[in-house]
Amino acid sequence: MEFRRKPRIGVMGPGSCPPDLYSLAQEVGFLIAGKGAILICGGHGGVMEASARGAREGGGIMVGILPDDSPDGANPFIDIPIVTGLGNARNCINVLTSQVVIAIGGSYGTLSEIALALKCGTPVIGLRTWGLTAPDGGTVPVARAQSAEEAVNAALKLISSLQ
Amino acid sequence: MEFRRKPRIGVMGPGSCPPDLYSLAQEVGFLIAGKGAILICGGHGGVMEASARGAREGGGIMVGILPDDSPDGANPFIDIPIVTGLGNARNCINVLTSQVVIAIGGSYGTLSEIALALKCGTPVIGLRTWGLTAPDGGTVPVARAQSAEEAVNAALKLISSLQ
Amino acid sequence: MEFRRKPRIGVMGPGSCPPDLYSLAQEVGFLIAGKGAILICGGHGGVMEASARGAREGGGIMVGILPDDSPDGANPFIDIPIVTGLGNARNCINVLTSQVVIAIGGSYGTLSEIALALKCGTPVIGLRTWGLTAPDGGTVPVARAQSAEEAVNAALKLISSLQ
Amino acid sequence: MEFRRKPRIGVMGPGSCPPDLYSLAQEVGFLIAGKGAILICGGHGGVMEASARGAREGGGIMVGILPDDSPDGANPFIDIPIVTGLGNARNCINVLTSQVVIAIGGSYGTLSEIALALKCGTPVIGLRTWGLTAPDGGTVPVARAQSAEEAVNAALKLISSLQ
Repeated sequence: MEFRRKPRIGVMGPGSCPPDLYSLAQEVGFLIAGKGAILICGGHGGVMEASARGAREGGGIMVGILPDDSPDGANPFIDIPIVTGLGNARNCINVLTSQVVIAIGGSYGTLSEIALALKCGTPVIGLRTWGLTAPDGGTVPVARAQSAEEAVNAALKLISSLQ
Repeated sequence: MEFRRKPRIGVMGPGSCPPDLYSLAQEVGFLIAGKGAILICGGHGGVMEASARGAREGGGIMVGILPDDSPDGANPFIDIPIVTGLGNARNCINVLTSQVVIAIGGSYGTLSEIALALKCGTPVIGLRTWGLTAPDGGTVPVARAQSAEEAVNAALKLISSLQ
Repeated sequence: MEFRRKPRIGVMGPGSCPPDLYSLAQEVGFLIAGKGAILICGGHGGVMEASARGAREGGGIMVGILPDDSPDGANPFIDIPIVTGLGNARNCINVLTSQVVIAIGGSYGTLSEIALALKCGTPVIGLRTWGLTAPDGGTVPVARAQSAEEAVNAALKLISSLQ
Repeated sequence: MEFRRKPRIGVMGPGSCPPDLYSLAQEVGFLIAGKGAILICGGHGGVMEASARGAREGGGIMVGILPDDSPDGANPFIDIPIVTGLGNARNCINVLTSQVVIAIGGSYGTLSEIALALKCGTPVIGLRTWGLTAPDGGTVPVARAQSAEEAVNAALKLISSLQ
């Protein structure tokens, strides 16, 4: 029945960020909403807030999967707070719930989400995010996008190909 | 900002159930949707499916917090599957995410959700569910409802009182 | 290879308790250590501390599975703190890690551990703990013990029967 | 009371690995045991098994924090299986429970553990593991060791400095 649901695109990034990254994440969120997809994010500030703000501007649905044990820390653009009480272990839920992850920027939490997504098979699209060098020199399947539009289009294409 | 969000009511119950319990849970879901609240459930069959089916009939929003590591096990009435991969530990997320829990019927999973809700302070309303006797004979704050309507009205009253 | 390991007995109970329950849990821990089994507990105070204190007096090994994100909250009788950062979701780990659970006393957390143990198939022995009445009047498989010795003997017998 | 406990050193690495990495991890485990520290690992095969095998040869204590919901998947060198049932979310417990993490080799799970350790403040020592390039070009605090001995000595020095 997965095909009857709206696509779910995760936006993962640091809880605080400079204005240019905030604008980029906001544009990503806006485009996600415009495509009729649900935004999955960590529910806090920075890139998470920016993407949810953008998705609200685009008339979307914003899910925030919070590490906290109360919804109080959710940013004001989250429609549906999922209150996990799990701390960083919620990062696993973010990447399992998202059909594709767009990773923006460079915190350690974002790095963990890239790694967990790769581990559980969720495709990852990177925007100004971590560079990874495997010890054996092998290729790491993080698709690199240069713009919000490129990232969201790639995400939707990946979701279509899954169905 | 919690006040700007739709109320979140959890319906917890066994993954398989007899027809009368299914009908009861379906009515609960229908009434929740009619009140404009979001249904939070475990996403699987039985009471979970019944409540989500009812909520869809009522035009609601259905969130299914799954124990699995894929959305494939979600019942077809779930709009937003949250894929936790945590097994029974997802029961904690159910009761933290819900502002009130309506417990219907009598599996061990439901009992754990009643206990976890009591532990974390989420109010519980019981419909044909477990009887609990504390070892010291103390009162256990599970409100007992006799009908779907009574349960949903009590849930909304409790959420109003929290704000 | 499970047969080469020491048995693992969980003691679950409230984080604060009156002196008589403390003494009972301490005796349980002492007897567990005397049988060469590892004590699994939640690592905090009350019944958890008492059982670990008893196990240390008996020369045992004490594992504390903490809800916190640091080991600082572990009681001083814990040899091996497992730092989960998961809050109440760690209760699931307690009952999965224990081969048998001895539930002592009556907090909501203890009730959740009884329920989760029943759910995942870990046998439960109750000592002055919750009374449970299923909605269909069915029997609940919690073995009731009257003393520390009876509880620990029953636990070991159950573990032997599993092998 | 942390000072009265044995140090806890985590060894994180892929669940299957070539012989040279296996030997390296085995030597790390042996040295950890020789220093009187407890080995924390994921409990499965590959680097996890190798480190536990080495620690057993060294007379140590081996804790395996398993993703599974049963102890059956633990390698035979694990003394104390912690059965989480959490899938990859158990990686968070590994790095919170360890006072220092030694990351060996290059799976995505290992990458997630490096990232989660950095996120929660557990120091990381790398042995033939991932190279990381932050998007802003900043330094990533993963200490690079060239041998098992160098890694274990560095780990113990870090733990001493924490106390």
